[in-house]
Amino acid sequence: MAMNAPRGTQDILPGTVEDWQYIENTLKDLSHRFNYKEIRTPIFEHTELFQRGVGDSTDIVQKEMYTFEDRGGRSITLRPEGTASVVRSFVQNKLHGLANQPTKLFYIGPMFRYERPQQGRTRQFVQFGIEALGSEDPAVDAEVLSFAMKAYQELGLSSLKLIVNSLGDQESREAHREALVNHFSPHKEELCSDCQIRLKENPLRVLDCKKDRDHPAMKTAPSILDFLNEYSRTYFEKVKFYLDAMDIDYEVDPNLVRGLDYYNHTAFEIMSEAEGFGAITTLSGGGRYNGLVEDIGGPATPGIGFALSIERLLMALEAEGVELPKQEELDCYIVAIGEKPELEAVKLVDKLRSEGLRVDKDYLHKKMKAQFKAADRLKAKKVLILGDREVENNLVNVKDMATGEQKEVSLENVMAELKKMKEE
Amino acid sequence: MAMNAPRGTQDILPGTVEDWQYIENTLKDLSHRFNYKEIRTPIFEHTELFQRGVGDSTDIVQKEMYTFEDRGGRSITLRPEGTASVVRSFVQNKLHGLANQPTKLFYIGPMFRYERPQQGRTRQFVQFGIEALGSEDPAVDAEVLSFAMKAYQELGLSSLKLIVNSLGDQESREAHREALVNHFSPHKEELCSDCQIRLKENPLRVLDCKKDRDHPAMKTAPSILDFLNEYSRTYFEKVKFYLDAMDIDYEVDPNLVRGLDYYNHTAFEIMSEAEGFGAITTLSGGGRYNGLVEDIGGPATPGIGFALSIERLLMALEAEGVELPKQEELDCYIVAIGEKPELEAVKLVDKLRSEGLRVDKDYLHKKMKAQFKAADRLKAKKVLILGDREVENNLVNVKDMATGEQKEVSLENVMAELKKMKEE
Repeated sequence: MAMNAPRGTQDILPGTVEDWQYIENTLKDLSHRFNYKEIRTPIFEHTELFQRGVGDSTDIVQKEMYTFEDRGGRSITLRPEGTASVVRSFVQNKLHGLANQPTKLFYIGPMFRYERPQQGRTRQFVQFGIEALGSEDPAVDAEVLSFAMKAYQELGLSSLKLIVNSLGDQESREAHREALVNHFSPHKEELCSDCQIRLKENPLRVLDCKKDRDHPAMKTAPSILDFLNEYSRTYFEKVKFYLDAMDIDYEVDPNLVRGLDYYNHTAFEIMSEAEGFGAITTLSGGGRYNGLVEDIGGPATPGIGFALSIERLLMALEAEGVELPKQEELDCYIVAIGEKPELEAVKLVDKLRSEGLRVDKDYLHKKMKAQFKAADRLKAKKVLILGDREVENNLVNVKDMATGEQKEVSLENVMAELKKMKEE
Repeated sequence: MAMNAPRGTQDILPGTVEDWQYIENTLKDLSHRFNYKEIRTPIFEHTELFQRGVGDSTDIVQKEMYTFEDRGGRSITLRPEGTASVVRSFVQNKLHGLANQPTKLFYIGPMFRYERPQQGRTRQFVQFGIEALGSEDPAVDAEVLSFAMKAYQELGLSSLKLIVNSLGDQESREAHREALVNHFSPHKEELCSDCQIRLKENPLRVLDCKKDRDHPAMKTAPSILDFLNEYSRTYFEKVKFYLDAMDIDYEVDPNLVRGLDYYNHTAFEIMSEAEGFGAITTLSGGGRYNGLVEDIGGPATPGIGFALSIERLLMALEAEGVELPKQEELDCYIVAIGEKPELEAVKLVDKLRSEGLRVDKDYLHKKMKAQFKAADRLKAKKVLILGDREVENNLVNVKDMATGEQKEVSLENVMAELKKMKEE
């Protein structure tokens, strides 16, 4: 058997990892400015958490989870998404009791779903997400939407579309649900077998079906927006009002239904409109989930969040031709020839690194020319040359790789000289 | 069933997570200066990788792995350590074919071992490690040791002890192995049952046994250092020579044997000497593993690395009373009272965050006094006050929380004014 990474997983190697680092740093900086703080939950949880927190009827729970027994006989599952774990932690650690509410959290890390691997969809993927728990103010919904758009915009993306919808509160959802059942029941036999089950269990998700999307009854289906009660309608108006005030463009799509069961009020998705992005244009999504904390055993607490996949974000960057900045150069490369110069080089590399410089040297006993070649490839700004003559005289020869200028500097003063040259 | 995190795992929450971030940033910065580049491998691998790459006879593989079948019937295992995965990736992605050798990599992320949880030992824990593949220069060994010591020292630790040993090359190890078997065989019946097996399979690890450590035969056991051949002896001398040159203190302990099977030549551990640190004082360790790349199916390639656990590092920081710096304050908190001011606040918060400031506001419709209290708790440097009067006049009232000074600023100029105040 070849020793390869398991199917649907990938190694992220130098040359590519710098893009990931840049993206993560940008998202962390954005979280900092929006005052969302990091939370880290375990890679796996008790399976029951996802059955309750994601929903027993979802594809994720039914078909896609990495579930297994640990050595103690517990059923555990590699997390398929982030929200259930964050809410579990919020309840377990009683974060609702802290003084500063809402509790604003972000997370970033690997998630796991056993799906057929394809471009931009791996079995292990990285999600970044935020959750705001403890406020039912439409201004929080607007903040989360603004955050989501900025996440893409600050990385240089511009071909974006924000789709919003309201799924209403429980009363509105129930009225709509009844209307959906009445509308689709006469066509039940014409719908796919999944939709026949959905019509009974969660008729809203019929609107989300890929197989039945061209059925004529889809176009005339009752819209949730016609069933919002006064509170839900006003709530949605306020969210849109704040989006307008912040100059955030959006479209309302009454058919936007998120794949997870727990959403209410605001639901949204961000799509890429870049040419050649591919068939599935959704980059990320989120929404409000006012019942979830209670479902997981905590006190009634409103919540809203969103999550994005870094893999799909990278696809969008590629589709729009955005190049992220990279910092590749070494400050110095040390070229040393001979046994004594080699010893001086070991000491000098270590000293310069301690002083904050990014420095490397040869570890393969290469000839001088090959060492210079390595310095070139590593984009060293300066090369410090140590031969027997230099060591005897306590000197080092400093070559500026941009100008080609060389200068002899005493070994003791080399750090000060390098700093001086940097300022020049 | 309570919805708690699985036994042996933990949530890392705001208030604690900042220490983790600081430590990780320090380790990443150190990697950058030493020119080690990040690699990210999957959370799980084919089980066979660890059987081959960690060693079938080790406790890790025999007792501690999270191994399960995925939905496709593959045996997969949550990684118990980092080196096997990095080497697998090095081979699979043919990194040995790249121009710049040695390949210098670092990784950081969760690892999993099913052990009895106790202080500083969790079933999911975070390891940071580096690997240098492709050079058998003692200067690389010295570089890795210097890196390991700096990792702790730059975080403020000082009560540290570096223990080094040489396990020699294969010839030396075989000679030593034979001597060990001859030495312990007369006492076989007096040793624990594990050691009776070890004596046959890997007699070196008898020296590492916690049960038999007081047996008189331990003290008189033949030392590996007496069995090093010329090459291995010279190699070890050079490593020590470089450590001396870099002013790195160390002790040689010929009984230092690492838990994994694949080490040769240099082996080392770093211990905490802080009072009250606990019984197990090892913080981290590493060593050279020249046969491992071949074992995993790659071309013969020398390698060396080390890994540290962040959990144990945090214990050492606590034992030495080191407080890591924290950056907690907000740049601004916006206090708004009334419907129109609330709208202006939503816009202003969003604008200031876009401009790079760390800003928050109230989302619970609190009264003015409670909003000021929140600003205090969040350590806001400035509070911007918006009431009906301010909004009518297109103004915002800026209060400096350190001096108590207040100043009216036009809404349009508020960003420029805040910058100006920052410079003053």
